[in-house]
Amino acid sequence: MNGCTFTPEELRHDKPREECGVVGIYNHTEAGNLAYLTLYAQQHRGQEGAGIVTLNGSEFHAVKGQGLVPDIFNHARLQELPGNYAIGHNRYSTAGGAGLKNVQPLVAGSALGTIAMAHNGNLTNADLLRTRLIDEGAIFQSTIDSEVILHLIARSRERSFPRRIIDALAQVKGGFSLIFLTENSLVGVRDPHGFRPLSLGRFVDGGYVLASETCAFDLIGARFVRDIRPGEMVEITREGVSTCMPFQLHEGAFCIFEYVYFSRVDSVIGGHSVWMVRKNQGRFLAKESPAEADVVIPVPDSGVATAMGFAEESGIPYEMGLIRNHYVGRTFIEPQSSIRHFGVKIKLNPVREVIEGKRVVVVDDSIVRGTTSRKIVEMVRKAGAAEVHMRIGSPKIISPCFYGIDTPTREELIGSSKNAEEIRAYLSADSLGYLSEEGLLAASPKLGGYCTACFSGRYPVSVAFDQPRQPQLF
Amino acid sequence: MNGCTFTPEELRHDKPREECGVVGIYNHTEAGNLAYLTLYAQQHRGQEGAGIVTLNGSEFHAVKGQGLVPDIFNHARLQELPGNYAIGHNRYSTAGGAGLKNVQPLVAGSALGTIAMAHNGNLTNADLLRTRLIDEGAIFQSTIDSEVILHLIARSRERSFPRRIIDALAQVKGGFSLIFLTENSLVGVRDPHGFRPLSLGRFVDGGYVLASETCAFDLIGARFVRDIRPGEMVEITREGVSTCMPFQLHEGAFCIFEYVYFSRVDSVIGGHSVWMVRKNQGRFLAKESPAEADVVIPVPDSGVATAMGFAEESGIPYEMGLIRNHYVGRTFIEPQSSIRHFGVKIKLNPVREVIEGKRVVVVDDSIVRGTTSRKIVEMVRKAGAAEVHMRIGSPKIISPCFYGIDTPTREELIGSSKNAEEIRAYLSADSLGYLSEEGLLAASPKLGGYCTACFSGRYPVSVAFDQPRQPQLF
Amino acid sequence: MNGCTFTPEELRHDKPREECGVVGIYNHTEAGNLAYLTLYAQQHRGQEGAGIVTLNGSEFHAVKGQGLVPDIFNHARLQELPGNYAIGHNRYSTAGGAGLKNVQPLVAGSALGTIAMAHNGNLTNADLLRTRLIDEGAIFQSTIDSEVILHLIARSRERSFPRRIIDALAQVKGGFSLIFLTENSLVGVRDPHGFRPLSLGRFVDGGYVLASETCAFDLIGARFVRDIRPGEMVEITREGVSTCMPFQLHEGAFCIFEYVYFSRVDSVIGGHSVWMVRKNQGRFLAKESPAEADVVIPVPDSGVATAMGFAEESGIPYEMGLIRNHYVGRTFIEPQSSIRHFGVKIKLNPVREVIEGKRVVVVDDSIVRGTTSRKIVEMVRKAGAAEVHMRIGSPKIISPCFYGIDTPTREELIGSSKNAEEIRAYLSADSLGYLSEEGLLAASPKLGGYCTACFSGRYPVSVAFDQPRQPQLF
Amino acid sequence: MNGCTFTPEELRHDKPREECGVVGIYNHTEAGNLAYLTLYAQQHRGQEGAGIVTLNGSEFHAVKGQGLVPDIFNHARLQELPGNYAIGHNRYSTAGGAGLKNVQPLVAGSALGTIAMAHNGNLTNADLLRTRLIDEGAIFQSTIDSEVILHLIARSRERSFPRRIIDALAQVKGGFSLIFLTENSLVGVRDPHGFRPLSLGRFVDGGYVLASETCAFDLIGARFVRDIRPGEMVEITREGVSTCMPFQLHEGAFCIFEYVYFSRVDSVIGGHSVWMVRKNQGRFLAKESPAEADVVIPVPDSGVATAMGFAEESGIPYEMGLIRNHYVGRTFIEPQSSIRHFGVKIKLNPVREVIEGKRVVVVDDSIVRGTTSRKIVEMVRKAGAAEVHMRIGSPKIISPCFYGIDTPTREELIGSSKNAEEIRAYLSADSLGYLSEEGLLAASPKLGGYCTACFSGRYPVSVAFDQPRQPQLF
Repeated sequence: MNGCTFTPEELRHDKPREECGVVGIYNHTEAGNLAYLTLYAQQHRGQEGAGIVTLNGSEFHAVKGQGLVPDIFNHARLQELPGNYAIGHNRYSTAGGAGLKNVQPLVAGSALGTIAMAHNGNLTNADLLRTRLIDEGAIFQSTIDSEVILHLIARSRERSFPRRIIDALAQVKGGFSLIFLTENSLVGVRDPHGFRPLSLGRFVDGGYVLASETCAFDLIGARFVRDIRPGEMVEITREGVSTCMPFQLHEGAFCIFEYVYFSRVDSVIGGHSVWMVRKNQGRFLAKESPAEADVVIPVPDSGVATAMGFAEESGIPYEMGLIRNHYVGRTFIEPQSSIRHFGVKIKLNPVREVIEGKRVVVVDDSIVRGTTSRKIVEMVRKAGAAEVHMRIGSPKIISPCFYGIDTPTREELIGSSKNAEEIRAYLSADSLGYLSEEGLLAASPKLGGYCTACFSGRYPVSVAFDQPRQPQLF
Repeated sequence: MNGCTFTPEELRHDKPREECGVVGIYNHTEAGNLAYLTLYAQQHRGQEGAGIVTLNGSEFHAVKGQGLVPDIFNHARLQELPGNYAIGHNRYSTAGGAGLKNVQPLVAGSALGTIAMAHNGNLTNADLLRTRLIDEGAIFQSTIDSEVILHLIARSRERSFPRRIIDALAQVKGGFSLIFLTENSLVGVRDPHGFRPLSLGRFVDGGYVLASETCAFDLIGARFVRDIRPGEMVEITREGVSTCMPFQLHEGAFCIFEYVYFSRVDSVIGGHSVWMVRKNQGRFLAKESPAEADVVIPVPDSGVATAMGFAEESGIPYEMGLIRNHYVGRTFIEPQSSIRHFGVKIKLNPVREVIEGKRVVVVDDSIVRGTTSRKIVEMVRKAGAAEVHMRIGSPKIISPCFYGIDTPTREELIGSSKNAEEIRAYLSADSLGYLSEEGLLAASPKLGGYCTACFSGRYPVSVAFDQPRQPQLF
Repeated sequence: MNGCTFTPEELRHDKPREECGVVGIYNHTEAGNLAYLTLYAQQHRGQEGAGIVTLNGSEFHAVKGQGLVPDIFNHARLQELPGNYAIGHNRYSTAGGAGLKNVQPLVAGSALGTIAMAHNGNLTNADLLRTRLIDEGAIFQSTIDSEVILHLIARSRERSFPRRIIDALAQVKGGFSLIFLTENSLVGVRDPHGFRPLSLGRFVDGGYVLASETCAFDLIGARFVRDIRPGEMVEITREGVSTCMPFQLHEGAFCIFEYVYFSRVDSVIGGHSVWMVRKNQGRFLAKESPAEADVVIPVPDSGVATAMGFAEESGIPYEMGLIRNHYVGRTFIEPQSSIRHFGVKIKLNPVREVIEGKRVVVVDDSIVRGTTSRKIVEMVRKAGAAEVHMRIGSPKIISPCFYGIDTPTREELIGSSKNAEEIRAYLSADSLGYLSEEGLLAASPKLGGYCTACFSGRYPVSVAFDQPRQPQLF
Repeated sequence: MNGCTFTPEELRHDKPREECGVVGIYNHTEAGNLAYLTLYAQQHRGQEGAGIVTLNGSEFHAVKGQGLVPDIFNHARLQELPGNYAIGHNRYSTAGGAGLKNVQPLVAGSALGTIAMAHNGNLTNADLLRTRLIDEGAIFQSTIDSEVILHLIARSRERSFPRRIIDALAQVKGGFSLIFLTENSLVGVRDPHGFRPLSLGRFVDGGYVLASETCAFDLIGARFVRDIRPGEMVEITREGVSTCMPFQLHEGAFCIFEYVYFSRVDSVIGGHSVWMVRKNQGRFLAKESPAEADVVIPVPDSGVATAMGFAEESGIPYEMGLIRNHYVGRTFIEPQSSIRHFGVKIKLNPVREVIEGKRVVVVDDSIVRGTTSRKIVEMVRKAGAAEVHMRIGSPKIISPCFYGIDTPTREELIGSSKNAEEIRAYLSADSLGYLSEEGLLAASPKLGGYCTACFSGRYPVSVAFDQPRQPQLF
C-alpha cells in the first residue's frame, strides 16, 4: 500500500469487468450529442476511454480521449462533431492495452470510401489473422484485436460495404456486437452466438439508434424497438431498416453475467427488466441457501437487487448496513502503509447500529478473487455482527472469459482452486452460499441459450492459446 | 437548455447546500495524508474546492485547488505537505464567491508567528466588521467572510494565540466551527449556539483529529472521543487537550438539517447514528401522513433511509423504482434543447416493472424549489404508476438560512409562497405529505436545542440585512 | 486584423518555408538526448511538431508532439526514450495537413520486424501510389505522403529491410532525404537528384549521426565526416558504414534555397560555410545592382549576411536600422483593428537615428508575396529615410516548389505576375534590385547542379497535377 | 550538468538582470490590449510573470500569470480585461521569490475605493516597514517588498489617493518607478534619485500611456511626450496631466546599466537613442583599449552595438563569428553530463570560416561571473582563432545592486575579487580591456547624474543589511 493509485476500475472491487459499450445514431440533427449521452449512460461498460465519430455530408469528424466520458467531451469538443449520423464507443481494455491509439471507433479509408467501426466483444483468432495480415504488408495503427476486422474489410474484393463486412466477419471467431458507419448506412451486427447484447431503438420523429443497453434509450428519449438477434446484421439506410442472417447459426450463448452484474438494473434485455431478473436470482438464492439471521444487507451497489430478492423470499428484514461513498469512481491516491484495509473503507463504511449484535446476511452478486469479500466480512464483524452469512447471487467462477470480459487468470480466481468450504474459511464467514448454475438459469429468462463458461468451463467457441510473437507497434 | 453546463452541485438536485467541512490533525506522521482522506470522506459537505496546510518543524506548507478532492491532490501534491500537523477544508461557497483565492485554509503572519484557519459556518456581521477593518487600513486577500476573523486576530493586542482567538471571536456573530493551527497548538472552537458540528477523535498511538463528521474517523482509523460542545474551545498541545468555555452561552441551535440531509448516514452526531435518526423520521412521516399504496420508493440517495423507515412503519413493500447513474457528480455538458427534462433523467432512470400499474409512495428528505420533485413525479407517472404519493421527511422550507447553508432566496423557496395543496398541485402528485416540525423534533435525538429557522422563520441570531458597499478585491 | 493569431511561421514573414529536418543516432548511450538536441538545432527547419523514436534492445519507444521542440520534450518525456539508437524529425507540414497523427517518425510492424522512418522532402507521385495502395486494402494512419513509402516497404517481398527500402524507393518520385531505424541498422538515403541535404557525422568514441544540417554536429560534439551523395544509400550496422548507389542517376538538383535562406548560417554544406556563401551572394548583388546610398541595413535576421557582403563590396557603411524582438517566435494574439501595420512592428522596430535623413539600402534574401517587404519599406521611410533602395540576394520567385518547400500558389507569388518595375512600385521603393540567376549560381559553390525551379520554372522531376480524390482518414 | 533545466533567464548568460517593466494606459478603448502589447515589447525587462488590471466603469478586472507574456495572455484572457484604463507589469523577481501570488499589479480595497499598483525597483527599507506593519496587524498577501507601499496607503489617514501615495512614499527608501490606477486617475511616480526610467506618451486621439521604455510607444502607435523626472509625480485625470515634486530632491542616480545592457536598443532614454549611445561606448572602448586584430565580432545580441562602434573607431572589419539560435529563450532541458560546455553552445555556434587563422576581438557589454565569457573565449579559440582579445563596453562590476537589479552576491562577481590581469588569465584571453568609468560616463549622455554603484561601490541610498525574521506567508 505504498502510495499507489487506484484506477476507477480497481475501485469497482473484484468483479469481472465489462469491456465495452457501443452506440450508433442514424438521422438525428443532434447525432453527436445523443451519442455522447448514450456513452454517458453506458459509462459502467468501460471507463478507460471513449470516442465518437460523426458524419456530416460526406465528411467524417472524430473526437476521442482517455478517461471518463464527461472528462473527454466538453462543449467545444461536441461542437467538433456535426452531422446527423454518429457512432461511439466506451472502452474498457480487454485486449490491446491502454493508450489513445486504442480508443475506438476506428476509421479506415478504402476504395469504397470511408468506414468507421465500434466493437464490443473479443475475437479468439485475432492474433492469427493479424500475423497473416502483417505478412501480407498490412500496417496496424492500434494494438486492439478489432482492427483486424477493418483490414479484412479493406482487403475484401466485394463491391459494397455490407458484402465486405460479411466477408470479413466470416473469417473471425469469438464475440462481437459491432456497429459500422459509412457514407450511406449504419450497420449493426451480432456474432452468431450472440455473446454480447445490442438493441435497436427509434426516435419519435424518425431516426434510429443502436446501443448496447436500453437504459440509454430512456435517457435520449428513444423508443425500444427490439434486440438484434444472434447472427443478424441490420443495415439502416434512407430506405429504412433491412436485415439478414449471413452467418452459419450456432447455439445461443448470451453472456449470463449481463443479468448477474454487467448491465444496469434499469436496462431491459430480451424483454426482461434486469432489476427484476436480478431480484429473482436473489429469491432463488434464498431458497437454495437459506440463513437463520436477523437482517439482510447488500454490498452496495452490486448486491442491492439480489439482497432485496433474498430478503423478500426469506422474510428477513432488508437493511442498509454498508454505505458507499458516492464520490468514489475517480482516480484516488492511496496514502502510505500505516493505514490498513484502506481500499474497502474508502468505498464502504458500516452503520454500526444496523449491524451490532445481529446475525447478518451479506449479499453480493459474485466473487472473483475473494479479497474484497474477505475485507467486507471483517468490516461487518468489526461493526459488531454476531454472525456473518455470505450469500452470492451466482455460481462459483472457475474459468476465465475469452469473449470480451476482463477476468483474472485462472490462478487468481478463488473459485478455480478452492471449494466452497475453503472459500468460506478464507472469507472467515460463518456460512457461504452460492446460487447454483441450475438455480441461476431457472431464475433467469428463457432466452436462446447462455454462455456459462466462467461457471462451467464449457466454452461455446474454441480458443487458440498459442499466440505468435507480434512486431511492436505504436 | 442551450448547451449550458451542470456543475456537480446543480446535479445534487434542489437541496439546501452544505457549506463546508473542516479537519485538523495533531501529531501523526501522516498528517497531510490523513487530512486528505478526511476531506475525501467529507466531500459531500463541499465540492467547490479544498485545501490543506501542514506544519513541519516551524515551516508551513499549503496546497489548495478548485474542484473535487481527488482532482486537487495527487501523489506529488501530497508530498508537498510534510509534517505531523495539518488542517484542511472542504469549500462550498456560501459567502464570498468562487475562485482559488477563496479556498481555505487561510494563513496569516503576525508578530506571534504564523496562524492557519479553516471555517465552517457563516458570520452574520462580517460585512460590518470588514468595512471597519478596511477603514483602519486592512487589506483583504479574499472575499470570504471568514477572513475578518484572521484580521481581528492579527490586530488583537493579546499576547498568545488562544487569547487572541477568543478576543476575535467575541466580536463576531453567527455560526462557526473553526479549526486553527499554530506552531504550538491545534485549536477547535464552536460558536455558542452550536450551529455546525465538530467532533474530536483520537488515534491509537496518540495524536488527535478534529473533524466535521465522524464518518471520517472510520476511514482514517481514529476512535471517536466526543463532540465539541457549543461555545467550547479546545486547545491541543504537547501537554494534551485543554478546554474552556470563553463565550457567553446561548440556547442550543444545532442545525437540524444535519440529521435530515447534510450529514452522511454513516456518521454519528450527538451519539446517534444519522441512518437510524433518518429512518425514524421516515417512521414518524408514515404515522403522520399515511398512504394507501402498493410500493414505497425512495428518491436515491437522499430519500433512501426515510423511505425505508416509511416502509417499515407502514408495512408497504420497499422497492427501488428509480435508479441513479453513479457517474453523475462530474461536470456535465447538457446538449441542446430538443431533449426535454434532461436534468433529472441523467441522474435517475425509472424501473418500469417496479412502478407500472402500482400506487407509488415516493419519499424524499426535503423540497426546496420543487422543480426536481415535479420532474420526478412526472417520470414516475410516465413509467406507468397508477397513483403518485409524495412524502417528505421534513417540514416545508419557508425561510433562507444565514448560518452557513446555501439556500435560495425566499422567493425561490416553493414553501414560502405556496401552501401544501398548491405545492401538491404544482408537483401534479395525487397527494403530498410533509413531516411536521413537531414530528421532526420528536423523531430526532433530544440534544440541547435545534435551529429550525428554515422551517419556522425563528432565527436564533439576528441578521443584518443592510450591507455596506465593499471596495472590490482580487 | 480582428483578433486572429499569428503562428510562429507567419511571423517568419513571407519566406518560402522549409519542410523538415531529420536526424539519426547510431550507437551512443545518450541517443535520445542527442536526437533531441539535434532537433533543437534544426528547429528552423520545422516548428509545427517533432518526434523521436528510440530503440532499446529490441523495444522501440516513441515521443511525439505538436509545437516547438523544447515544449514537446521535458525531462520526463526524454526518460521515456531509452536506448543507444534513435531517429527524429522536425515537422513543417508541406503535404498532409496538421495534427499529431502526422508527426513523424512513422513506425510500422512487418514480418521482418519493426521499422521507423523520418522523411525530409516531398513525393510527386504520392497520391497515385496512395490510391493504388488503398485499392489493394492498405489502411493509412496519417495523411502525409511519406506514409506510402512505409506501405511499399511493408508489402515488398524482399527478404531484408535494405532491399525492401530500395524496392520501395524505386517506385517513388520527388525529393527525399530519408532515415530509417530497424533492429539492426540505421539507414540514410538521398534521392537521385539530391534535392535536400543529408550529412554524416561521427562521435569521438564511435557511433554515428545523420542529420540535415551540420550546425547540429557542433552542438552535440560530433565530427563532420561527409555529405551523403545524391542517390546514395548508407547503411550503418555493427560492422560499420556500408554504401551503395541503388538508383538510376540523374543530374544534380540541390535546392539552391538552402544557401539563400533555409540553412542556418553556421552550417556547412558541400564543404562551404553557408555564412560565407550568403555574404558572397551579397557581394555579387552589390556588383549587379549598386546603389548610391549612405547606409546598408539588413532585414534581420534573414538579410544579415547578404547585407554585410553588400556593404563590404560597395563600401557603404553597414548599420542595424531595424531591431528584432527576440521573443517573437511564439504564438501571439493580435489585438483589434485600430492598430495598423501591427504584424511587422511586433517583429521589427526602426532605430530612427540610424535611418533619419539617410539614403538607405535595405537588404533581404528573397521576396515571396511582397507584403512584408512593402511594410518594411514604409517603416524605413516613416523613420525618416531620404531614399529606400531594396536589394534582394536571389532572383525573382516565379514558380511554386513541388519537392518539399512550402511556397504559396503561383497567384500569390508577386514575382509570377509582376515585373521588377511593377514590384518596385508595389513596394514604394526608390529602386529595387534582384540578384540574377547567373549571379546567384556564380556566387554559390560549384556543386553537382542546382534545382532553380522556383526562379526559372524548370522542374527537374515532372509533377502530376491531377490528384485523385482520397477517402478521408483520421 | 545532471538533467537540470535552464530557465530563460539563465540562458541570457551571466548578465545582471533587470527586475521589471511597468505600463499604464489612460483613456483608450483598447486599454487592455495596449497594455498587453507594451508588456510584450518590454518582455526583456522581466520574464518570470506578467499581469494586467483594467478598470471598466467602476469595476476592476485582473489577469495574471507566470511565464512569458504571449503564454499568459490569449484571446480569451484579453477579453476578460474590458475598460479604457489599464496598468500592467512584467515581473522579474528581485525580492520576494517566485509564485503567482507575487505577480503584480497588486490591488487593495480601502475606504477610498480600490487602488492597483505596479512597481519597478527595489525598496531598501522594506523589511523594517513590513515588520512594523505586521506588528500592527497587517496581513500580507505576497512576499514582494512592493506590498508595503500598498499597506502604507491603506493605513494613511489622508483623504485622497494622491495624498495617501505621497504619504506612503515619503516613508520608503530605494528605487521606484510606480504606476497606480484608481477609479479616477492614473498616477506615475519616480523616486527622487530617478534610479529607474519612466516615460510619458500620448495617443493621436487623446489618451496617455506611461511605460518603462519608449520602444513600446513605437509598437502601440503612441507619440513620446517626455520622461517623468526624478522625484516627480504625474496624475492623469479627466482634466489632463498634472504634476508635482512632492519629495525632497536628491542628486540624480539614473542606472547607467540601462544604457549599457538593459534597455532595448530601439528605445530612447533622456532623448538619446540607446543604439547610438551603446555604439559610442564601443568607440570609447576602442580608443581606450585598442587591439591589433583582423576582425571584430560581437557576442550576440548583447554586444552587437558596442562591437560595431569598436569596429568603426578602430577600422577593423566587423563580422558575425558567433551565431545565436533564436529559439533559445524557452525553458530547455539539459541532457546528461557526457556533453560538455553545453550551455553556451545551445545559444551560440561559431562560424569557423570567419574566425579561423584570425586575430579576433570579441566584444560584449559586461562581465558578471565570467563563466560564460570564458566559454566564449574557448569556443572562439577552438574555431581556429590565432588570438582572442576580449573587450567589454563597461567597467569591472565589483558590487551588487540594491535598487532593483538582480546581481549575484559580491563573492560571485568575478570583478570583486580579481584584478583585470587575473580575470584575463581566468578567461584565457590574449588580452582583456574594460571601458573605464570615466570613459563610460564620457560616452553616455549628460543626464542629471548616474548611479554607478555596481562599478564604484558608491551607493546613493544607504542600505540596511540586517533583516529581521519574517513570519511565513502563503
